[in-house]
Order: sequence, then structure tokens, then C-alpha cells
Amino acid sequence: MDKLKATLEKIKPIDTSSLDATQLRLDNLTKPKESLGRLEEFAKRIVAITGRRNPSLAKKVIITMAGDHGVTEEGVSAYPSAVTAQMVYNFLRGGAGVNVLSRHVGAEVVVVDMGVGEELEAHPDLIIKKIAKGTQNFAKGPAMTREQAIKSIETGIEIVEKIIKEKGVDIIGTGEMGIGNTTPSSAIAAVFTGKPIQDVTGRGTGIDDATYIRKVNVIQKAIEVNKPNPKDPIDVLAKVGGFEIGGLVGVTLAGVANKIPVVIDGFISTAAGLIAVEMKPEVKDYIFSAHASVEIGQRWILERMGLTPILNLNMRLGEGTGAALAMSMIDAGVKILNEMASFDEAGVSREK
Amino acid sequence: MDKLKATLEKIKPIDTSSLDATQLRLDNLTKPKESLGRLEEFAKRIVAITGRRNPSLAKKVIITMAGDHGVTEEGVSAYPSAVTAQMVYNFLRGGAGVNVLSRHVGAEVVVVDMGVGEELEAHPDLIIKKIAKGTQNFAKGPAMTREQAIKSIETGIEIVEKIIKEKGVDIIGTGEMGIGNTTPSSAIAAVFTGKPIQDVTGRGTGIDDATYIRKVNVIQKAIEVNKPNPKDPIDVLAKVGGFEIGGLVGVTLAGVANKIPVVIDGFISTAAGLIAVEMKPEVKDYIFSAHASVEIGQRWILERMGLTPILNLNMRLGEGTGAALAMSMIDAGVKILNEMASFDEAGVSREK
Repeated sequence: MDKLKATLEKIKPIDTSSLDATQLRLDNLTKPKESLGRLEEFAKRIVAITGRRNPSLAKKVIITMAGDHGVTEEGVSAYPSAVTAQMVYNFLRGGAGVNVLSRHVGAEVVVVDMGVGEELEAHPDLIIKKIAKGTQNFAKGPAMTREQAIKSIETGIEIVEKIIKEKGVDIIGTGEMGIGNTTPSSAIAAVFTGKPIQDVTGRGTGIDDATYIRKVNVIQKAIEVNKPNPKDPIDVLAKVGGFEIGGLVGVTLAGVANKIPVVIDGFISTAAGLIAVEMKPEVKDYIFSAHASVEIGQRWILERMGLTPILNLNMRLGEGTGAALAMSMIDAGVKILNEMASFDEAGVSREK
Repeated sequence: MDKLKATLEKIKPIDTSSLDATQLRLDNLTKPKESLGRLEEFAKRIVAITGRRNPSLAKKVIITMAGDHGVTEEGVSAYPSAVTAQMVYNFLRGGAGVNVLSRHVGAEVVVVDMGVGEELEAHPDLIIKKIAKGTQNFAKGPAMTREQAIKSIETGIEIVEKIIKEKGVDIIGTGEMGIGNTTPSSAIAAVFTGKPIQDVTGRGTGIDDATYIRKVNVIQKAIEVNKPNPKDPIDVLAKVGGFEIGGLVGVTLAGVANKIPVVIDGFISTAAGLIAVEMKPEVKDYIFSAHASVEIGQRWILERMGLTPILNLNMRLGEGTGAALAMSMIDAGVKILNEMASFDEAGVSREK
């Protein structure tokens, strides 16, 4: 708990006083005022987050966390739980979607076992931090203990601290893999937003109507049985969350505490982002929503956080795939600030 | 006219028979079906356009064409015409928005003087193909002769053919610079879509209310005076177009004729894309709309063409800035197809 407490205390508001000054610098570049739209917003926010006048986002890291979910025994997913471990091996071989897109944008993928159901073989690129072999079935009781919830968050914090210390990082993307994990994410969304469960529940990897109805009922039951308290984000994580979700809460908090922008990926990563924001509202100004997921619950979480997604490409894969692409857009905005010529430098006339 | 005719005849429908086969290949990759949304659409379309099973989009070129507009004497822009030439020099020094974003995505920028008002100094990276020193004021008569319109299109074709021959290109982006050129673009949009002029006219580089009303009135007058015939796209280009717009019509047609995907940038490039589509409807399947521009006329042109923009970042700079960013998204889709592991390769279980 000490590490979590220290991290939360370390989080300060962004330097909003720099926003206008950066806009003035952007207005001085050879383009009509604000004509690069959100790219200018990204540049301003990165300056305010990092406290650097000319920040670089060269070192990009996607942290992809995996975990299994006891609730899959209720039959809420289109895929068997064995796929979680299989996909971890796929990440390590570089064959998954997140690997391809991270290579495309020049990001490194860090793969973490936060609670995969089976023992994974050691691999130089795999960080094994298993809290347990999957969560408990939260339709019947809490997904994990409060201690495990805290441990999962602190593990995420430790991983970011280690990355900062050993190689440095300029921008972090969150990603996940865990068969069944849209179910806890919908439960988290329902608890914090107060929306009806159907409004925050989608089809995950692609379930049929009967499975969809079962999924909604399971979430309903989980909330009734566990009574997660939205005023206590750790309680929500413990009762209806997941180990990879807890890990990503920690990743998000640690990034923010160290003034590193965090790009949250799709539905599950956004649910983790929300828990972080509920713990410390200042987090919101440090994070970017990568993309509008096909999973409908995400939009209500984003509305609650006041974030507008960068991309809208009808994606719903997770893993950090959207975060990788969105990172490249944020980097584009920063390069505009750093590399474009000013009116004076270029000898270009201003507005009449 | 021979070159234009030959180019139009060379344009054939895309190979739609490959679309289902490519989707099957995508469905075999380690992800839920269609979970990469539009990235999968991009991959399918690029295979159908290029006729290659595993296409590469490594060689990216943005062709940025510049021209001046006689209609600026009506006071329709926030910037003086001198800025067109000044910005060409800025492109050549690498200091403009399109330079920064092209470097970011690994694209080369080709700069063409299609009709800048003043003589430009020679530069190894500048292609000077001036049709005339700016168009005529189309509030009073045609912007150019029919011969000049055809010459501008054929110049665009020749430039693409030269690039193909000398260095090769896998994907082309269109971009432009020309003070006053949202005015002809709105006129083109009004003529082809039949929408009221206010619905297709925006604030360009940022004009005030009085200038906006003047701009709408000028376009109204231009259409009344010139009576452009929407059944004859060359007539529309000649009467209310511009030299850089004509050049981009040619670039688009030549890309398509050579089975090279073309990413059309914002409002002006989209107006050029529309002229190309009106000349040959098959063009539509070869082109991608880079982004939703702040300029409101673009949406109606895109609706007419049946294209959905890739990005929506509140941009309105032009130059090819959106095309550069969108190209990177299309490339991401192609890499998914080429680089992701299949279920069998990765030993990952399929749906239950």
C-alpha cells in the first residue's frame, strides 16, 4: 500500500499555465491559426504534462498485460481461456496485431503476465508477475481480495518504474489480453457511470445473442452479489475487476506520477484508466484516449472522464493496437511544434 | 488531349474478386474476425487496387501543387497572394506542416508550381510547370481556357508518370497550396452536388463574417456568369477551378491508371478528386479520403463519392498534411495482412 500511496501523492496537476504560451508558439508557425486542430492540442498537452518546452516522444513503449478471468466459466466469451496464454506466446514471437502496429510506429512492446491461468514458460521478454492463476468467478463472489487488487496496481507501478530506470520512456501505451475481460470492464463501467448494464456491454470478441444475454445477466448478478462501492475504486477493482486491469491502473498512475503521457487503448484499458482517474482526478489531464472502440461501454467511460478519442477506425482488438497508432498521431503533433518554421524564419506574410 | 484520353482509357475497375479472398486471409490471423475494422478494409482495398497479394506501401510520395487565383482580387482570403510563393519556398526548405508530417511517416514531398503568380527561383526539388501566372478572376469570366484546363490535368499525369519511371511509388498523396483556393473548391462542390453555396463554403484560412458573405456572393456570381456544366468536368475545372486543382486531377487519374492508391487530402484535394471521379467513376475505388476537413464543403463531396474519411482531427491546413498521416494508417492495415501470424502458425485456438 505504501507504493500506491506514494505514487498517488506524487501526482500533481499539469502545468496549465504553459497552454497559452504553447498556443502562441503554434500560432507563430507557418499555417493559419489552429489549422492543425487536434495535433496542436496534443502538442500543448504534452508540453504541459512533461514540463518540457520541446519534448521528444522518441521512446515509445506499449505495456501489454495479460490475465485470466474466473467469470469465463459462466460462458461469456467466444474463445476458450487457453487463448490468453497462447496469445502471450504470440506477443513474444512478434506475430500479434500489437507487435505489427508497434513496429510500424517505432514502439517497443513489454509483455506482462499479471494472472494468466496457466504457468508460462520463461522468456527473456516476458515479465511474470502473476498475482494468481486467474481471478475468481465474480458472479459468485469477489474477483480477488483487496490485497490482491492493491498488489496488482503496485505491480504495474513497479514495472513502469523499472522501465524508467533501465531504459527511459517518453510515452506509454496501455494494452491487454485476457479472454473474458470485456465482462469485468462492462461491470466497472456500470458501477462508475450508473448506466444500465446493456448500455455498457458489447459483444467482445464476437458473441451471439444468447451469450450476450448471459453476459448481461452475469454482470447484473455480479453487481448484486458483490455490491462494489463506486466511492472506493480499489473495492470495485477487487470485486469485479481483473489482474491485468489492476496492473494497467498501476501503469497509468505511475506514468502520470512521473509526468509521462499515457495513451489508453480500447475498452478494457479505458476501464483501467477510469479506475485511475477515480482514485486521483488529476490523472485525466495526463492521459489520451487512443480510439473509439466498437465496444459500446467505452464511450460512457470516456464521457465520464471528459476525453475524446483520437482515432475512430472501428477497431475492437485491444492488446494496445489502438494505442500504438494513436501514439504516432500525438508524436506528429509534438513534431509540428518542434520542427515547423515560424513566419519570421520562413519569410511568410501573416494575415492581412 | 491524347495523354488525358489514354489515361482515362487505361483506368479499369479494381479487382473486386480478391476482396473476399483477402478477408478470408485476414480472418485467419490471430484476432477476432474483423476486429481491426478499417485497417482490414484498407488491406483488402490495397490488394484489390494493386493486384498484389502482399503489397508494400514503402515508397510514399506526397505531391503538393501550388497555384494562384485571380478571384483573390475580390477579397475572399485572409492572406495575401504573395503567401503562395512564400510557402513554396518554405516547402523546399522543409519547414512547412506537410514536410514535418511527411518526414514523420516516411513520405517524400514533391513540390510543383502549377501556376504561382510570380516567377519562382529554380531549385533542384521544385518542378516548375506553370500553366500561367495565376488564374483569371472567375467572378468575371472563366478561370482558364479549356486548353489550359486540359494542359493542367496532363501536366499532373506527366509528373506521376515521371515519378513512376524514375524512382517508383507505392502510394500517392495529394496536397496543395494556393491562397484563395477554397473559393474554387466550394464552387466545384456547388456545381457537382447541387447544394446551396452556403452549405459548401467555409472560412478557409480564417476569414471574418463580412469576408465570408463576400465569398459566398462571389461564388454565386461566378456560377451565374460562367454557367459551368456539371456533365462536363473539364468545363467546370476551366470555368471555376484552378491550375493546382487541375494538376491534382491529373495526379489522381494517373495514380489510378497505374494501379497506385491515391490518398486525397482535405477540401481542395477532395474537389480535385471529385473532378477525376466525375470523369471516370471507377476512380472512386482507388482513392482514400485522408481526413474530415473543418471546411464544410468537403463532406458533401465525399458523400457524392461515397468515401468515408480515415481521420478526424479538426484539421484544415491542406498541403497534403492529412494525406501524410492517413497514408500511415493505410500502411498499418497492409502490414497487418503481411506480418501478423495466423492461428495455425501461432498455435492459437479458434472460436468455440
